[in-house]
Formats: sequence, C-alpha cells, structure tokens
Amino acid sequence: MSTLQNDLLLRTLRGEKTERTPVWMMRQAGRYLPEYMVLRNKYGFFERCQTPELACEITLQPVDIIGVDAAILFSDILVVPQAMGLEVQLIESQGPILPDPIKTLADLKRIRVPEVDESLGYVFDAIKMIKKELHGRVPLIGFAGAPWTLLCYMVQGKGSKTFDEAKTFCYTQPEVAHQLLQMITDTTIKYLQGQVKAGADTIQIFDSWGGLLGPEDFEVLSLQYIRQIVTTLKDLAPTIIFAKGAWQSLDKMAETGAAGLGIDWCIKPQTARQFAGKNITLQGNYDPAKLLSPIPIIKKEVKAMLDAFGPGRHIANLGHGILPNVPVDHARAFVDAVKEYRFD
Amino acid sequence: MSTLQNDLLLRTLRGEKTERTPVWMMRQAGRYLPEYMVLRNKYGFFERCQTPELACEITLQPVDIIGVDAAILFSDILVVPQAMGLEVQLIESQGPILPDPIKTLADLKRIRVPEVDESLGYVFDAIKMIKKELHGRVPLIGFAGAPWTLLCYMVQGKGSKTFDEAKTFCYTQPEVAHQLLQMITDTTIKYLQGQVKAGADTIQIFDSWGGLLGPEDFEVLSLQYIRQIVTTLKDLAPTIIFAKGAWQSLDKMAETGAAGLGIDWCIKPQTARQFAGKNITLQGNYDPAKLLSPIPIIKKEVKAMLDAFGPGRHIANLGHGILPNVPVDHARAFVDAVKEYRFD
Repeated sequence: MSTLQNDLLLRTLRGEKTERTPVWMMRQAGRYLPEYMVLRNKYGFFERCQTPELACEITLQPVDIIGVDAAILFSDILVVPQAMGLEVQLIESQGPILPDPIKTLADLKRIRVPEVDESLGYVFDAIKMIKKELHGRVPLIGFAGAPWTLLCYMVQGKGSKTFDEAKTFCYTQPEVAHQLLQMITDTTIKYLQGQVKAGADTIQIFDSWGGLLGPEDFEVLSLQYIRQIVTTLKDLAPTIIFAKGAWQSLDKMAETGAAGLGIDWCIKPQTARQFAGKNITLQGNYDPAKLLSPIPIIKKEVKAMLDAFGPGRHIANLGHGILPNVPVDHARAFVDAVKEYRFD
Repeated sequence: MSTLQNDLLLRTLRGEKTERTPVWMMRQAGRYLPEYMVLRNKYGFFERCQTPELACEITLQPVDIIGVDAAILFSDILVVPQAMGLEVQLIESQGPILPDPIKTLADLKRIRVPEVDESLGYVFDAIKMIKKELHGRVPLIGFAGAPWTLLCYMVQGKGSKTFDEAKTFCYTQPEVAHQLLQMITDTTIKYLQGQVKAGADTIQIFDSWGGLLGPEDFEVLSLQYIRQIVTTLKDLAPTIIFAKGAWQSLDKMAETGAAGLGIDWCIKPQTARQFAGKNITLQGNYDPAKLLSPIPIIKKEVKAMLDAFGPGRHIANLGHGILPNVPVDHARAFVDAVKEYRFD
C-alpha cells in the first residue's frame, strides 16, 4: 500500500496511465545547487555520504528547490568497493582514486563480500531518515553501480575514457574477472535488498561504462550480473537499468524483468522504443549540455522530447548527470516544462 | 591508372570483388612499435610530423613490420587548427593543449583559412616522399579530423570525456559555432585536395567526437560539414568517414557519397550493414583492447568478425586506434588472421 502523495514515477514504472509524465534528473542533488555547495565546502565527500543527516538534507534539496517527482539517495557507487575492503579516495573535482587496485587472483584475497548492515549501515540509516523527512511527498530512488562498472574502477584504479586496463584484465584473466564480478554482484544484491528494506521505493542500476563493451561482451561481463540483481529484487521493488551507450542490448535488458530502462541522448526515443519493445518504461534522454541553452529553447526541446516518447511508459530525465555549471533556473525550466505538458 | 601492386583497399572501396579482405589498423604507426619509440624518444611530436623524412619513415614502419594492406600518413588532426593560427601543444602521454581556445566571436579574428601550401606544405612533401618510398606496394591513406571534432579541441582547449564546453559554445552561440565550423571546413577541403594532389590514394575523415551528439545535432554540427568535404573530394579520391559512436546516422553518412564508413566494436556488423545499406564499404570493427587477448583467441575472433561482415565491401580494421601496450606479435596475428581467411 503506497501512502505517497505523488506516485507518478512508480505508476509509470508499472505501466499505468498517469495524468502527466514524471520527471527527475540524474545528479539532481549536485554541484549546480548553491545549497549543495555550502555543504560540499564544509564536509568531505564520505562525511556527506556517511552522515545520515547530511545525506538526507542533500537528497531533499532538489525536491524542495526544483520540484522533481522523485528523490534519489545521495551517495556514490564506489561505497560498494569501499565496503568490500578496497581503499577509495574521492578528491573533489579530480575523480576517484583507488590506490591499490585489483590486478591478479591474489588481490581478491584483500576483498570480501561484506556484512552490509555493518559496512553500509549508514546508507540504510540515511534512507530511513530521508523517508521520514519526505513525508510521502515523492518516492525515493535507491541505487548501485552495475558490477561491470564497479570492476572498471576496482581494476583500473581511477577514471578513464577507455578503461583499457580493466578490459585487458577481463580478456587475459577471465576466471579472475568473473570471480570478482560475482563478488561484486553478491555484495550489491545484499546492499540493494537492504536499501529496499530501509524504504527505497525503486532501484536504479548505473552501468556507466556498459557502452565500452561490444554486444557479446556486454552480455558476458555486464548483463548476466545485472540480471541476477534484477531477478533478486523483482518481488521487492521495481528496477531501472541505465547502461549508458549500450543501445544494442536494449532488447535483452528489457527481458531481464526490469521495470525501466534509461537511455542517453544519442538514441532517438522512437528507436529505443523499437529496440526495447512496448512493455517497459523508458527514462531519459535530454542532452545534459543542452540545459545550458537559453530557457525558451529548453522549453521547446522538452516538448519535442515528450512528443517523441509519446504518452505513457516514459520518465523524463537527462541522458546523463546534470552538469555543475547549469543555472538553477534552467534546471527548474526543464522540470517545469515536463510538468506543464499534457498529451491530449 | 593504378600502378599499385596491392590495391585490395581501393578495389574494396569501389565495391569490386577481391580475392581477400584488406586490413590495416588505426594508429598502426604508433607506440606499440619499438621502432616508432626510438624516433619518439629522439624527436618531438611536431618535429616528427613536420620533417618529411621522419613522417615518411614512421608511416612505412607498419607496412614493413606488420604487413598491412595500406599505409596511413603519420600526422595529427590538430595540424589544421595549428595552421589556422591556434597554438597547439602536444605533450607526450598528456594529450593536446590549446592554451588560447576559441570562446567568442572576437576569438575568430585570431584565426584564418590559411594558404595550405604554405602552412601545411610539409604534409604534402611527406606524402610525396612516402609515395616514392612505397614504390606502389600498398595505397596511402591521407586524413583529416572532421570539423566538429576539431571544434571540440579548438573550443575546449584540451581533451575531455564530454566536451561540454564545446557543446555549450554551440548551444549558446550557434552563429559563431557555425562560422567556425565553416572556416575549419574550408581549410580542410583545401588541405585534403592538397593531400590527394600530393599522392594520397584515399582520404579518411576522423570524427572522433561525433558520438557525443544526438542524431539531430550530429546532422547540424557535424555531418553537414563532412558532406561538403566528401562532395568536394568525390571526383578526386574515395573517402572513408569514421564518426565514432554515431551509429544512428550511418544511413545519412552512406548517402553523402563516401566510399566507406568506419564502425566501432559496439555495433554488430550485421546491424551496421542494415543501417548503412548495401552500396557502401564498411571498415572495422575489432575491439582494440582485445588485441591484448592471447593470440589463439585473437585468431578465432578475427574469423568470427570476418564471417559477421561477410564477403566483399569490408576493410578489416580495429574499432579505434591500437593501444600502446599491444605486443607486436599480437598486432601481426590480427593482420595475418585476416590475410589467411578465405570466403568459400
């Protein structure tokens, strides 16, 4: 039984007819918000993640300031490798550094599938607090990185355009790679079950680097593990898979049992619908760089996007995270344009 | 009249039947070759580009060492912004830096459409020398960056994952952006005409960042300028367009009059063929990271790739540049596997 006042997102994920398209933005609790910058300048990254009061305040900011139809937990996908025992440094504006990455079978001994209540309990505490503070205004989205994307960081040790060291690891030591992927998957399943138990209404899986893999490798190195996660969560909460750039596998992702699929701006909504089929909700796909355009252009383009997706089975969003230099009124114009639109 | 001993590449670009599939590798004259590293450690980047003897020696190395079916001019796409009047620094292993990028209309006054014989004459000299040294063994591929990709560097001032400053420039100052794109296009046309006149047998246009644009923007910001270039070159030499990631526009690229289209490993050959139609040659698409796999796996996967493309209208290549850490015998195994294969 939902006690949500605004459950547009959840109804859309279930394929129900809604009065309008729901809208939220990836990285909506982020650097474009001056209110976020105040907390960012005062507390370190992991301090903000690990202090439920701060994570809660940051998560709620875009709900209050921009008026989005969903909150998304403020956290980072790299809390999972951290909980597994790898050191993760998040230096502001520099990207993550994992100083002792996984390179061989022996390195697997340094990590473990942790007790999530212990190592990630702060996330569950934050979720409980957020749910309380939200008072049912909008649903809360929990999330985790896809195992493949986490492997990329755990092996490469830092961000990369091509993650060629991570790929080489998989192509030269496939058994070790699959052992690692399974450990990440087992951790992620327990982590996401905990998020739902704590109150997350839906879960998004971010496969930021899924698009670096050819279609066959995407199945072997990424999708088979995402599938395990989705299957385990299926009776608990609806799942959204966002595998950036992995358009060639939209059909297979649609068959996992996920409720929604995120798409980026490089695929036309009609093409994505054709690939994904009719029985799944699509989420996206405004080019984040276009939020820097003048507001009248944003309004016009949002309408064109909504028309291209058509009524129902669509959650309006960006095709990737909002950029830090987007003016707040441009972000609000995006959200308002979706809210004002009606299919007649 | 071709006096080439091996004209497999050119015949394949014309759609003629050939005894086997031709093969070359993007960045084949590069850091994986110890012979290249000797020259790289001795001479600066622009010294290697601008000294015809060095450019010639480097261009020929993979023909001699790996046995590819085509040479590609050793140079860089950023010689064009440099010739237009922008400072370009190429610091080894760091990526390009353009310290005074284009940000406004006023900045356009700092650049010009140059006399290419003057500012890029060293390239034409290199081509003449290469052609002479090749003695008709294999064809020579000339190249240039697509105007959109060059704009990315000229505006962003350095490499980037998203080139969001370059995109913002286009979305907030479209008139200036188009003025810049046209200046780059005009320069590129003269530059490529000069390359063909000097002896280049075919031209590849690299749109490395075309995949950052949605399909509509790709037409407006990239393809309309590539089309101008292809049209102007049409009666001079066959053109290959490689717009990495721009799979949604393969149909439109096929209609430009180009002879070939490069594709990356994230699209299945059959899908690319379906999008591009039957009357164009496809080039690609082995995942460069997979050249680090054991040789028997490379051999097996090359066969699978050739089968997927089917006979004719295919040039075997990687889906992006070869990585510096690929062992030479792996690169050779790739080339040999293509050469040994026969469609029966």
